[in-house]
Amino acid sequence: MNLGSDNVTGASPEIIDAIVRANVGTAESYGADEITARLDGAFSELFETPVRVFPVATGTAANALSLSVMAPPYGAIYCHENSHVAVDECNAPEFYTGGARVVPLPGAGGKIDADVLETAIATATPHAEHNAQPAAVSLAQATEFGTTYTPDEVAALCGIAHGHGLVTHLDGARIANSVVHLGCSFADVTWRAGIDVMSFGATKNGAVAAEALVFFKPEYAETILFRRKRAGHLLSKMRFFSAQLEAYLADGLWRRNAEHANAMARRLSEGLSAIPGARLCHPVEANEIFIHLPPAVVRALRAEGHAVGLWGDPEDSVARFVTAFNTDASELDAFIASAQTAAKAEAS
Amino acid sequence: MNLGSDNVTGASPEIIDAIVRANVGTAESYGADEITARLDGAFSELFETPVRVFPVATGTAANALSLSVMAPPYGAIYCHENSHVAVDECNAPEFYTGGARVVPLPGAGGKIDADVLETAIATATPHAEHNAQPAAVSLAQATEFGTTYTPDEVAALCGIAHGHGLVTHLDGARIANSVVHLGCSFADVTWRAGIDVMSFGATKNGAVAAEALVFFKPEYAETILFRRKRAGHLLSKMRFFSAQLEAYLADGLWRRNAEHANAMARRLSEGLSAIPGARLCHPVEANEIFIHLPPAVVRALRAEGHAVGLWGDPEDSVARFVTAFNTDASELDAFIASAQTAAKAEAS
Amino acid sequence: MNLGSDNVTGASPEIIDAIVRANVGTAESYGADEITARLDGAFSELFETPVRVFPVATGTAANALSLSVMAPPYGAIYCHENSHVAVDECNAPEFYTGGARVVPLPGAGGKIDADVLETAIATATPHAEHNAQPAAVSLAQATEFGTTYTPDEVAALCGIAHGHGLVTHLDGARIANSVVHLGCSFADVTWRAGIDVMSFGATKNGAVAAEALVFFKPEYAETILFRRKRAGHLLSKMRFFSAQLEAYLADGLWRRNAEHANAMARRLSEGLSAIPGARLCHPVEANEIFIHLPPAVVRALRAEGHAVGLWGDPEDSVARFVTAFNTDASELDAFIASAQTAAKAEAS
Amino acid sequence: MNLGSDNVTGASPEIIDAIVRANVGTAESYGADEITARLDGAFSELFETPVRVFPVATGTAANALSLSVMAPPYGAIYCHENSHVAVDECNAPEFYTGGARVVPLPGAGGKIDADVLETAIATATPHAEHNAQPAAVSLAQATEFGTTYTPDEVAALCGIAHGHGLVTHLDGARIANSVVHLGCSFADVTWRAGIDVMSFGATKNGAVAAEALVFFKPEYAETILFRRKRAGHLLSKMRFFSAQLEAYLADGLWRRNAEHANAMARRLSEGLSAIPGARLCHPVEANEIFIHLPPAVVRALRAEGHAVGLWGDPEDSVARFVTAFNTDASELDAFIASAQTAAKAEAS
Repeated sequence: MNLGSDNVTGASPEIIDAIVRANVGTAESYGADEITARLDGAFSELFETPVRVFPVATGTAANALSLSVMAPPYGAIYCHENSHVAVDECNAPEFYTGGARVVPLPGAGGKIDADVLETAIATATPHAEHNAQPAAVSLAQATEFGTTYTPDEVAALCGIAHGHGLVTHLDGARIANSVVHLGCSFADVTWRAGIDVMSFGATKNGAVAAEALVFFKPEYAETILFRRKRAGHLLSKMRFFSAQLEAYLADGLWRRNAEHANAMARRLSEGLSAIPGARLCHPVEANEIFIHLPPAVVRALRAEGHAVGLWGDPEDSVARFVTAFNTDASELDAFIASAQTAAKAEAS
Repeated sequence: MNLGSDNVTGASPEIIDAIVRANVGTAESYGADEITARLDGAFSELFETPVRVFPVATGTAANALSLSVMAPPYGAIYCHENSHVAVDECNAPEFYTGGARVVPLPGAGGKIDADVLETAIATATPHAEHNAQPAAVSLAQATEFGTTYTPDEVAALCGIAHGHGLVTHLDGARIANSVVHLGCSFADVTWRAGIDVMSFGATKNGAVAAEALVFFKPEYAETILFRRKRAGHLLSKMRFFSAQLEAYLADGLWRRNAEHANAMARRLSEGLSAIPGARLCHPVEANEIFIHLPPAVVRALRAEGHAVGLWGDPEDSVARFVTAFNTDASELDAFIASAQTAAKAEAS
Repeated sequence: MNLGSDNVTGASPEIIDAIVRANVGTAESYGADEITARLDGAFSELFETPVRVFPVATGTAANALSLSVMAPPYGAIYCHENSHVAVDECNAPEFYTGGARVVPLPGAGGKIDADVLETAIATATPHAEHNAQPAAVSLAQATEFGTTYTPDEVAALCGIAHGHGLVTHLDGARIANSVVHLGCSFADVTWRAGIDVMSFGATKNGAVAAEALVFFKPEYAETILFRRKRAGHLLSKMRFFSAQLEAYLADGLWRRNAEHANAMARRLSEGLSAIPGARLCHPVEANEIFIHLPPAVVRALRAEGHAVGLWGDPEDSVARFVTAFNTDASELDAFIASAQTAAKAEAS
Repeated sequence: MNLGSDNVTGASPEIIDAIVRANVGTAESYGADEITARLDGAFSELFETPVRVFPVATGTAANALSLSVMAPPYGAIYCHENSHVAVDECNAPEFYTGGARVVPLPGAGGKIDADVLETAIATATPHAEHNAQPAAVSLAQATEFGTTYTPDEVAALCGIAHGHGLVTHLDGARIANSVVHLGCSFADVTWRAGIDVMSFGATKNGAVAAEALVFFKPEYAETILFRRKRAGHLLSKMRFFSAQLEAYLADGLWRRNAEHANAMARRLSEGLSAIPGARLCHPVEANEIFIHLPPAVVRALRAEGHAVGLWGDPEDSVARFVTAFNTDASELDAFIASAQTAAKAEAS
């Protein structure tokens, strides 16, 4: 079983159907098509407020383009030290901002600690123009460790940011999983809690390749057309990407997919937690599990052909598993059973 | 009829089928999948030489990433003054190279003039480090005006470039149309003629979104993985893009599509050239037509609901038409007939 | 005699004295000193309007930093094709703007042609965000060919720029020479004629190393402190540089120096023009002379040990001579005599 | 007394004399002069090995230009979390490298901890091209806290860096102070200990504005001419800067100045340490002192007109004092006496 990432899955049938349907007839290129034209409306409905939406093909592009309008080259962007923006985008934030500083902050469970953020910003510029100037805060939802900020937590961090004049960004690569976990609306945990700009992810939750920059404040969108084009992220046949986003929002596909993925994560979490010596590293609040497993269990699972990726220091034997919209429950149960069997064999 | 661009078309059924097939099961993400693994082989066969291939979703990304390994920030990139790189990428070359200079050169028919290139490079650095340092030459095939360099023409320009120590790039957004027009192999008009790195386009010729950087010299590929990632062009579910490229090469889809598009362009060119006062601006050597049409004809066509885009100074009344892999011959004939009828009405 | 550049000269005694005086006692670093504090006032008086002034050590830094606040990375900067910004700064404009496009424009005598500028801007964006967005116009005073824009000429170009929403920059590396030539005030040929930001040069006219960004509109100065620092152009012991600027403005040193340099240029121009076969390429309106000299004359001068630099195609035998604040009149006369003698020898 | 920085001092008389002497006659511009030509030799002698030397006007420029040839845009640069490169250059490293990541590392006394460095590099790329690629390590000598790495400490860190294929940089803004403290040669604590490229500072130790990039491995110098020019750091009348460097090396001026500054620092350190409640934060191994002083003492000193800058959290009441080549011993004694008097007054 491949639980290495939600990116190893394919796409929902609804997404594929949308691509096939978009292939009928001609359509204006570079986003001047009718499907793309409908996205602002569809997203505004989802978010219960007028938004501007710009599709791109990757999450790193969505994040980096977002940050490019939020931080000047002499600015500082605050994010969690384990966030995707901080460690898994090969300096894309620096590239797109023209050289802004990414400031990694500690915090339990992959979440930025509010006190740490407040202090970091408040003490950032003892030497005036000699120091990088605080510009933006970037949160991730779900976090890199599969935890989810509550609306109150988001509001607290955004309040600190705004209090110092910074702009707030949300990396929502797994936002659907968090919203489903919270049982709130998209609005509650984004703009109502103070987010200014977000990267809205669909790829990991069932699309082929479909992410979107969502602007809750139109002033930040003013230059994005030019920035997207010069980055090579303006898709010529954009309708094929917009169609994925449209299908993703329609009929609650995003919700069904995320609910399934989250349910599978809980199931896996419960199953593996029952193993003697296993220890969950973080609460499971989306579709990711980080769990310490006895090395013998890891070896046994690998011997059966399962891909088990270790996270962080290999000596810690912490495995990351990511469930998806189409994770098969019976396959998962078999996987869990294998792990439990291995543990028993080891114990005996 | 929409002949505004080959980007207004959808995708070939074979491409859609490939996407559907790629959706079965799980696959490693970020290009570690089996389909992507086969691309180097498939392209090496197409080009009759070992190549390294890196898929991306857009042509601008392919061009800009290519140039990023060919020119340092203090370098100069020579290209035709009407080329896509020069005018239609919103400074993507500057962005990706970290600030290299794009030097636009004149030349008839959208082709760089060899003497102009030689002089430009030879006289570029009278003041040593005060001047941008010649680094790369970028050709386009087909050119922005739908013309095609012969292998000898490519070889002459590459010879000049290499003679001065520059690297050569080919923007092959419509390379299939040119190869079909020339009746030669891909190899003949690329690496055998001196091209070092190319952007291989499939999108305009029937793919959804599939371009590739093709490296004929492996040393230029060394850093491309990092550059692609930091640009946000590493696709998480890359198999869906690689599958398009694979299908595009398989069974000569590229050839069938380009042959049809080129034939439709010739048919349109012949039909419109018969109009009194019409005047082809450039030889039709791919799937684009640039033709002066009497303003009354343009008006009449637009009145019938056809999109007719004028190129350059509107007073010149030069229309650009682009045919595609799926341009319908009878629709095209009706379009031609409309134009001819309008011309007669105007004349009488 | 070394007339290769005004940079080959040393500094005026008044400038050296100012450096020596600035060396007394301690002073706050990084521009917080008292001399620097006086510069805004001194320049505001010179320009007859409130300005903000930021010293730097080089003209390329002044130009590139100016442009960095005038053009976004997706912008276009229009300048003369022979200007320093276009050809002699090794892509500094691209570097500092994060990748803006430098658009070289033709024009007689090193001056941008107004019609060419109007057309260039007006036709720059047929494809919306696909094209670089017109952002700034940069003039040079004196021009690279030693000519001087009149206030009316500056006003015409600035009017075009402002009419299209662009910002205007003046590279004033030799502004004193032009002001002296015109017999007008600094104000007349800068902000009153529509210049928004300028690079004010003192180095070529008698300073050791002292240039300044001068902002006629304070909004463009808002981020310059950060940009100067991150470029490494914030001088720690800035008083030594500010002192040069202060001395340069005091007691009309700038005027005395420029008057002498211009007078020497006229004297040289008249002397060399008398040579049969010699032909001035441009009117002498500052301290530079571009003159076609018979090759035999060039050879003879070089044989006597004079440095004679040819400009452009060596076959054209066009020499550039630059006079300076301290060019010795009798040495110059001897130089002219040598040239005339050589011409006669050749003729006989 | 102003002990706020060594930048508040002026320049040594020998430096001023050198500037005056350089002002005689003409000299080729942009570094083609004879003084500049002698620098490679002078520095090679100082360092006991052939080096290439490139003068610039600021330390930030020297650091950022050095790093620009050591780290690609997708690279990571490791430095101490309190280093100038990390916190006091307003993102200059990001700017000059085109977006490399600056990775701040902890370590006692402003020194990078060897184990921390080893772990940071060894664990930097679990996700291949998704992570910034380790490229360079930058040390500072003296450190930001006035401590000095021993040759063995430098060698250990460079060994780790080289073992992983990284390049090593030394920010030598106060290298003379460290060399004097160590009693070793420049060679011992730079290239012999594994440094590849360094920023050699003279400004803080008596020059007006004179820093130099020093390349111990010529391959890193290949592109520096272009990079320096495009950054606007090629000085037109460079002889005035090279003359400072030449004078700084001649007759051991660097040593005399540094010995005096260090002696004054020790004197101040001893005097202030005697105050009840005072506590040195770091060993005094150059010309900087970081010392906790009772708030009442700080207040009293300020009331007498002394500038006392607090470093870090103001609540910690840690003052930074920097002595210089021309710190007056009797003034310093009076300053110390004031502090001691204030402390006694407070105590009574």
